Amino acid sequence: MTDDRAWMARALQLAERGLYTVRSNPRVGCVLVKDGVLIGEGWHARAGEGHAEVNALGAAGERARGATAYVTLEPCSHFGKTPPCADALLAAGVSRVVAAMQDPNPQVAGRGLQRLRDAGVEVSCGVLQAEAEALNRGFIRRMRGGLPWVRLKLAMSLDGRTAMASGESQWITGAAARADVQRLRARSDAVISGADAVLQDSSALTVRAEQLGLEPALAERAAAAQPLRALIDGRLRVPLDARLFQQHGPTLVVCHHDQGRAGEWQAAGSELLALPGSAGQVDLQALLAELARRGCNEVLVESGARLAGAFWQAGLVDELLVYLAPTLLGSLARPLLELPLAQMAEAPRLQISEVRAVGEDWRITARPQPLDGHSKESKSGV
Amino acid sequence: MTDDRAWMARALQLAERGLYTVRSNPRVGCVLVKDGVLIGEGWHARAGEGHAEVNALGAAGERARGATAYVTLEPCSHFGKTPPCADALLAAGVSRVVAAMQDPNPQVAGRGLQRLRDAGVEVSCGVLQAEAEALNRGFIRRMRGGLPWVRLKLAMSLDGRTAMASGESQWITGAAARADVQRLRARSDAVISGADAVLQDSSALTVRAEQLGLEPALAERAAAAQPLRALIDGRLRVPLDARLFQQHGPTLVVCHHDQGRAGEWQAAGSELLALPGSAGQVDLQALLAELARRGCNEVLVESGARLAGAFWQAGLVDELLVYLAPTLLGSLARPLLELPLAQMAEAPRLQISEVRAVGEDWRITARPQPLDGHSKESKSGV
Repeated sequence: MTDDRAWMARALQLAERGLYTVRSNPRVGCVLVKDGVLIGEGWHARAGEGHAEVNALGAAGERARGATAYVTLEPCSHFGKTPPCADALLAAGVSRVVAAMQDPNPQVAGRGLQRLRDAGVEVSCGVLQAEAEALNRGFIRRMRGGLPWVRLKLAMSLDGRTAMASGESQWITGAAARADVQRLRARSDAVISGADAVLQDSSALTVRAEQLGLEPALAERAAAAQPLRALIDGRLRVPLDARLFQQHGPTLVVCHHDQGRAGEWQAAGSELLALPGSAGQVDLQALLAELARRGCNEVLVESGARLAGAFWQAGLVDELLVYLAPTLLGSLARPLLELPLAQMAEAPRLQISEVRAVGEDWRITARPQPLDGHSKESKSGV
Repeated sequence: MTDDRAWMARALQLAERGLYTVRSNPRVGCVLVKDGVLIGEGWHARAGEGHAEVNALGAAGERARGATAYVTLEPCSHFGKTPPCADALLAAGVSRVVAAMQDPNPQVAGRGLQRLRDAGVEVSCGVLQAEAEALNRGFIRRMRGGLPWVRLKLAMSLDGRTAMASGESQWITGAAARADVQRLRARSDAVISGADAVLQDSSALTVRAEQLGLEPALAERAAAAQPLRALIDGRLRVPLDARLFQQHGPTLVVCHHDQGRAGEWQAAGSELLALPGSAGQVDLQALLAELARRGCNEVLVESGARLAGAFWQAGLVDELLVYLAPTLLGSLARPLLELPLAQMAEAPRLQISEVRAVGEDWRITARPQPLDGHSKESKSGV
């Protein structure tokens, strides 16, 4: 069992190589072991290319017969862009398959492992499951719930502010935090921003190879697979000559009403989509559902305080990432997110899952918790 | 040298035993070693009681002759409440003295070590000096600069807020953070608060043995040595029947003008002091100097946003301690500290020296940095 965990840990490392490039598919790694010796390994690098199991079998060749396959996700049993991996493992004569987790894809969902079992292969599942799930949180969420995993990224001073009241807003975080955000973008299938932020900062929202802080070849591949840039622009305020539209990679502009102007955006190499919500706003949930339909597993929201507050209030944020810069912007400065709460009882409870140093800044990762998880106490006895 | 560091580390551990009780004096530990064997150890527990060296010599008795003394602070050379420790070490026949740091007290400042050297003792200084300085930051600051080390403690939500706009303010941090604040109070010689906070929360500002999370005997000793409670109440708004005045331990009320009413406060077992600053405010720097004169090494400011902002703006904060609770209070809620800055260029730069989990909350420790330490960059290229 200790060996199983060690080999699975290796398979997870391989799976991670697809972190920035797989897009829409899960990140999967596979290790083939015979008589305690590694005989082949593989990972899934890009949708449409070989799956991890097939790549590992290719590396092992004839030696795969009688081997154990460690896979970070249940081998698929259906014909997608490639034939089923369960069949490939059987054809190669693998005698034992250890999976980290079941495939949440309803087209698979246990059928891959069952097909192997039915063919006499020894099958077990659940080794390093939590780690495997963490790697594909977005894929799991999309398969099970039809929505992507939504990260809301914010940067603030020690006193919880993002920009001066005047709108003046220099970078408050350092270069290391900015590289970290680049990697967050690179692992996302879509980056969502709003008209306020794009007009204010003339953001490009692109992944830039040289800013990723990754090895050059990987950085190039990551930058080649630009995430979809989704601009929420209810009233079509961002002009088509904005910097955002001059970049490599797809853009989607989401408005409240397309005013019959979709052709203009198309001519500019972009796409215009109307998703009307209430009060002239875009329907954020409908947008996320649409992104999921298009295969987006992980979505990064990088916006101003207003849109950030709207995503939060709609209960659509799965993870809050706060970059904390060691400065104070003062009490006149702009808030982190616009969230008009009147009473303490309305305050949401989160769980801080990670706090880590990023250069001179710190990154706090928090997830929403149900309100009842928190036992409120009165402040008497100070 | 490795041995020297190991013995000094032990002496520092002993010194820490005085963390909550020494008051006004430095925390000092001493270890006596002969032929590689520990023959006596001691620490300073309370002003007026035996110094670390004397306590260690008492434990070692006759065996001290020819031994090495490891002391976390240069042995004193002057008559204070007790005779000079340098003399005691000489009388006991100690042949080598290793000190972590010079005594910053201008009455000593190298004279203790010199006296030992003159008498033929082998002397060295500087072993684990940084650690020794960290333990007595307040004492050093007071001796060298005539001011105490000032910690500003704040508690905020993930979005940088302390209380609702209505003033509603329950505890937002958990029990572990509150125990941590109790220990901060206990190690302080004075706790400063303002009328706003005391009226709003009817704070007692006391150290409570059962909330310290320390072993019972130590907790009792810490609670017996209550820090001075200094209330900044410019216009004498806090009535003498407030909870603050009903507690064990000394209180000092600082106002802008005492209106000839000092007798009322004295009759209530308190003290009234006028330290007029500008615009009807109390002179905060004069207050700190007065506290230093009274022997306060470490001072904890626990106040509302206004007084916290005033201390910060006056440049009187040495250390900012922010307790971060995993909740959001929203953009209508009250700011962390009132600090009206208009431009990014005015934003102070801090250095975050520690971030640690305290129960479900996190504590961030930061210190001010000179502004030029930060290279500003424009935000182009987002």
